[in-house]
Amino acid sequence: MVSNAPNKADSKAKIGILGASGYTGSELVRLLLRHPNAGIALLTADRRAGQTMAAVFPQFSPYDLPKLQSIDGIDWRAVGLDIAFCALPHGTTQTVIKDLLARAPNTRVVDLSADFRLAPESYAHWYGHAHQAPELQREAVYGLTEVYRDAVAKARLVANPGCYTTCAQLALIPLLRANAIDTGEIVVDAKSGMTGAGRAAKEEMLFSEVSEGIHAYGVGHHRHMAELDQEFSKAAGREVIVSFTPHLMPMNRGILSTIYVRSSQSSPEQLHGVLLSWYANQPFVHVLPFGQMPQTRHVRGSNMTFIGVARDRIAGRAIIGSALDNLVKGASGQAVQNMNVMLGLDETTGLEQAALFP
Amino acid sequence: MVSNAPNKADSKAKIGILGASGYTGSELVRLLLRHPNAGIALLTADRRAGQTMAAVFPQFSPYDLPKLQSIDGIDWRAVGLDIAFCALPHGTTQTVIKDLLARAPNTRVVDLSADFRLAPESYAHWYGHAHQAPELQREAVYGLTEVYRDAVAKARLVANPGCYTTCAQLALIPLLRANAIDTGEIVVDAKSGMTGAGRAAKEEMLFSEVSEGIHAYGVGHHRHMAELDQEFSKAAGREVIVSFTPHLMPMNRGILSTIYVRSSQSSPEQLHGVLLSWYANQPFVHVLPFGQMPQTRHVRGSNMTFIGVARDRIAGRAIIGSALDNLVKGASGQAVQNMNVMLGLDETTGLEQAALFP
Amino acid sequence: MVSNAPNKADSKAKIGILGASGYTGSELVRLLLRHPNAGIALLTADRRAGQTMAAVFPQFSPYDLPKLQSIDGIDWRAVGLDIAFCALPHGTTQTVIKDLLARAPNTRVVDLSADFRLAPESYAHWYGHAHQAPELQREAVYGLTEVYRDAVAKARLVANPGCYTTCAQLALIPLLRANAIDTGEIVVDAKSGMTGAGRAAKEEMLFSEVSEGIHAYGVGHHRHMAELDQEFSKAAGREVIVSFTPHLMPMNRGILSTIYVRSSQSSPEQLHGVLLSWYANQPFVHVLPFGQMPQTRHVRGSNMTFIGVARDRIAGRAIIGSALDNLVKGASGQAVQNMNVMLGLDETTGLEQAALFP
Amino acid sequence: MVSNAPNKADSKAKIGILGASGYTGSELVRLLLRHPNAGIALLTADRRAGQTMAAVFPQFSPYDLPKLQSIDGIDWRAVGLDIAFCALPHGTTQTVIKDLLARAPNTRVVDLSADFRLAPESYAHWYGHAHQAPELQREAVYGLTEVYRDAVAKARLVANPGCYTTCAQLALIPLLRANAIDTGEIVVDAKSGMTGAGRAAKEEMLFSEVSEGIHAYGVGHHRHMAELDQEFSKAAGREVIVSFTPHLMPMNRGILSTIYVRSSQSSPEQLHGVLLSWYANQPFVHVLPFGQMPQTRHVRGSNMTFIGVARDRIAGRAIIGSALDNLVKGASGQAVQNMNVMLGLDETTGLEQAALFP
Repeated sequence: MVSNAPNKADSKAKIGILGASGYTGSELVRLLLRHPNAGIALLTADRRAGQTMAAVFPQFSPYDLPKLQSIDGIDWRAVGLDIAFCALPHGTTQTVIKDLLARAPNTRVVDLSADFRLAPESYAHWYGHAHQAPELQREAVYGLTEVYRDAVAKARLVANPGCYTTCAQLALIPLLRANAIDTGEIVVDAKSGMTGAGRAAKEEMLFSEVSEGIHAYGVGHHRHMAELDQEFSKAAGREVIVSFTPHLMPMNRGILSTIYVRSSQSSPEQLHGVLLSWYANQPFVHVLPFGQMPQTRHVRGSNMTFIGVARDRIAGRAIIGSALDNLVKGASGQAVQNMNVMLGLDETTGLEQAALFP
Repeated sequence: MVSNAPNKADSKAKIGILGASGYTGSELVRLLLRHPNAGIALLTADRRAGQTMAAVFPQFSPYDLPKLQSIDGIDWRAVGLDIAFCALPHGTTQTVIKDLLARAPNTRVVDLSADFRLAPESYAHWYGHAHQAPELQREAVYGLTEVYRDAVAKARLVANPGCYTTCAQLALIPLLRANAIDTGEIVVDAKSGMTGAGRAAKEEMLFSEVSEGIHAYGVGHHRHMAELDQEFSKAAGREVIVSFTPHLMPMNRGILSTIYVRSSQSSPEQLHGVLLSWYANQPFVHVLPFGQMPQTRHVRGSNMTFIGVARDRIAGRAIIGSALDNLVKGASGQAVQNMNVMLGLDETTGLEQAALFP
Repeated sequence: MVSNAPNKADSKAKIGILGASGYTGSELVRLLLRHPNAGIALLTADRRAGQTMAAVFPQFSPYDLPKLQSIDGIDWRAVGLDIAFCALPHGTTQTVIKDLLARAPNTRVVDLSADFRLAPESYAHWYGHAHQAPELQREAVYGLTEVYRDAVAKARLVANPGCYTTCAQLALIPLLRANAIDTGEIVVDAKSGMTGAGRAAKEEMLFSEVSEGIHAYGVGHHRHMAELDQEFSKAAGREVIVSFTPHLMPMNRGILSTIYVRSSQSSPEQLHGVLLSWYANQPFVHVLPFGQMPQTRHVRGSNMTFIGVARDRIAGRAIIGSALDNLVKGASGQAVQNMNVMLGLDETTGLEQAALFP
Repeated sequence: MVSNAPNKADSKAKIGILGASGYTGSELVRLLLRHPNAGIALLTADRRAGQTMAAVFPQFSPYDLPKLQSIDGIDWRAVGLDIAFCALPHGTTQTVIKDLLARAPNTRVVDLSADFRLAPESYAHWYGHAHQAPELQREAVYGLTEVYRDAVAKARLVANPGCYTTCAQLALIPLLRANAIDTGEIVVDAKSGMTGAGRAAKEEMLFSEVSEGIHAYGVGHHRHMAELDQEFSKAAGREVIVSFTPHLMPMNRGILSTIYVRSSQSSPEQLHGVLLSWYANQPFVHVLPFGQMPQTRHVRGSNMTFIGVARDRIAGRAIIGSALDNLVKGASGQAVQNMNVMLGLDETTGLEQAALFP
């Protein structure tokens, strides 16, 4: 059996994955199994505690991985993780991380939930209750690597961005920072694959309900909007409220954001130029030639984001496309990218694989 | 074998389908096989001439249908069709119909191609050549049934609307006529299943190329835009240029248009009210309760269009969803609906079937 | 709103559907909405009691249907149904039907569950408990229409066959009755779409778990085997034990059974001949030309079964393909077909629609 | 741009891929881009000569790869490839390889076509013409790595096995060698994803034709049968003729073979034991616990084959499932595995990635 467990001899960082029975958890395992500097030492999954990872995700049958265990009663100090990836549901996350960091001062956390992404007041507004770890909420660094790389490097707690928001932010933040587009009526029409909705057994996520169709959901009140407003406003230097409409469609992986913007001052070609130069030396964002639009299938399984810019037929407007794999750059891949930055490794370590197409 | 061929004894209209080897052709057959007042007397398909319909579409194996024949040398007067559905590619269509109408004065035509949808100058602009039958182009009635029903009833030549444009028009024309939305920056983000791209063997339409992904195409220069501009401008009483971005996704049937509009004078609830009253007595357009968005899967195989309206989080803006089956209400179903109107039949005859879900 | 409710004036049979919130229930509604001699008077769904059918299946939004109600406390005599379709889960079914038939002597039942398909001893063996209504179990007529038509006509309680078993039986029963194949080692490899697994929210049925893959399940111990053994043994006049392996694959509808048989006495062409003559006058089974294999997509949404026979390269063996839509001929369509026989109507009434392809 | 081009400094083998515009070609690129000891020096594609790989496969846009060129006029000696992967269509392949090997004595070839898999007489029988390079046909080593590893290590020309045949052989060859199953009536029911049919634009491979259905094809006369007969007969030590029926289904990648066997002498548990011990130390074949069946989705994108064995309900029979990714272990992955063996590298080099699920 193949094993990548860390040991005294090697220099592998000691990794724990909290919530390994979901899709972001298994994706972390997939990526870390091929990471030369990281070893999986701990896997938790309360509902599946005591089972093997192979029982929950048969694709890992050939690999030698730690058994799944319950979070309760883990001695965080004794385990001595270097990095803990937290892929737990919203809510429980904040108390688990608060406890973990209190007991294991040398462990650093990359949290994939929404718990530490928002500023306190915004969190209270959108989630309807006070945060359980406000001081950590203030300490947490928002982990959109391309934008906050330096802060991530020093962070003890990184709030990994959402999949929808990563996709839209990578396309728009450079333009907002350059003051190149109007901030009044930005429209983001997003199409997502089903893994973005998680692995919980719900009627509306059954194959027969999802196949052969598409629909919008959460129109006007999707929590990802808070994250977009917050980061867009920071980038623009003034309040931005974005129109964001997510759609669910029959594919496993991928998010395509088709973004409609107006620019009083810049041509579509100039917007394209801003993105080209901004991402010239970023390994995981590729700006396509002007007029070419991205396809989600061309980033599947990779940590890449493809961005395209085209001229709208309405004068003064442009159409921007952004595509990524929601489980990789939209979640677990960016989490590993952040880990690499935190550990001072080459940012692309373990993330080199090209997209799986077809 | 089941047969619906017309005969002296009955009162069935004598129907011909030109271009029966494509998807809109086979869909016409599917619908007409269950139409009590129409009999299929002629099927043409040049590439497959001499073959049975069962050889081209095995689902019709149990049915007794005319053999496919070549258009050349058909004696239109002798055949004496009541209604000819023309599902031929753009270009050839105009000469075929010109010839047919010249020889068979009692035959009326429903054309599913784009040849007769545009005004002469617009056609020349978008197709880059002069029309071969300009007088018929002027005579043709645009067949969006819900809007042009009376003209369709008297028409000799009906230009059946495109699938994308039917979907967007049914949602917006009532609002434009009521002067309820701003006409400046209407954004239509459309998602289509693959049958909309036809049955021609092209690499980009292979299952392996299409599955597990989504992408925009024809950004900024899709010919459907001409049709939208023309009809929207008519409805608004002033020139309207719309932003329209089509996407191809892995499903067989269905178009969902997510439409972003601004209204200085009407609330989203008022827009919903305009649509509700406009469609109160229209059998094939159903307006969902305010805030509920349509799903393409819920109209699959039926002639229904589902429309929903929701409040955008940006003040003064609304989001409108419109869903139909591109092969039914977006093509062959609306063609049969127009035939019913032309023949003075109940508009729903042969089109009553509920959607096939799942 | 379109309505097909029965009323004094018309001659429509009064129909009830017990368990209308599942896929076979909604499929019954879809088919009956277009049935000229049947009116839907009652819809039950305990979990969704009080809701509209549109809330559970939005495709029915345009139709005027009875509200969903709970079974408890229905006065079966007062309701006075002519036909009750029972689409309830195994187990509860037998007690519900026992009560219904006791109180409403004029109501006849078509049961889509497995409760009344097996002989008493076989039922006890496969389900591990005694039947709650053994006398009805003895009275029930097995509703494979093509085989038991006459008994169905007179039946008060029809046990509608399973989807897998209908698919395999229609291909093999004529051959077994004709003693044309060896009964020793019949291998049935079946591939099913996901609606066959029902609408219950289970992790293994999520889109992300099912898409882009195929797998066998219930190998060696699937309950459908009991039904196959029973009917095959009856047809052969001696005990037959069949090798049956079901697979789940990413499609909504359809079952393809690829059947491997040996024949010491008949050539593959002779087997084809037996099927051709057996089904010459059966409206819902179409035998393809020798060597042509059926595709599930060509029967989707229709009540047809397509059967093909080909020569195996191993001498003395043949390969038989059988395809149907599990929700139509495999469940609700055959149930309506049985209703037509029970009511003395033309067997094809309301079931004429051609397959929806693509 | 990321580049893996070989250079003087490093020890990378110099690789050429002939026919890089198809799926097996692009899959070779995907795998080799992450191979530490191989550098892509040459890519050919006659129809797309002069274009970049990014134009043909946009997923490679971020990578620095050689331009596609035409095979004609390549100076094989000057190019000096260490390994040439040949992914050209049947027929042309044999002349191209004959020419290449004649001019470049130090180049070794892994051919992914069917040209060198069969013995001369069998080739002539199944392909209906004499082979153009009979001496190479005799020299070629059949590249089922797990079986012919030693011969592959020394080979100049390796005939990479077909996808269907690799899947069935890995399950059956150990059993045939151990004389553990009857050879008389082995039935292989195979289900394949669409990439197995290649990238040629054919109507029957369009998304709309393939989605939502399954069908058998090439029943009784599929060329893969010749390869199976040849290798099964070798393994059994006597002539074996297998019943093989391939099916096409709506998924991109994956083959599942459900295999029905009889054994007069071994129990299903014993068959499982034979496979377990045979593959105990093979890195790319994983035998599941007895009774557990493989799913194609759990090997997607990886070089793994999962095999399961279960008891059939008919005494003396067993059901064996074998699943692999047709583009990886079924083609390009096994080709790289063979290259590793030929170059004396660890067999798993560059092939370590776990399956991409979901």
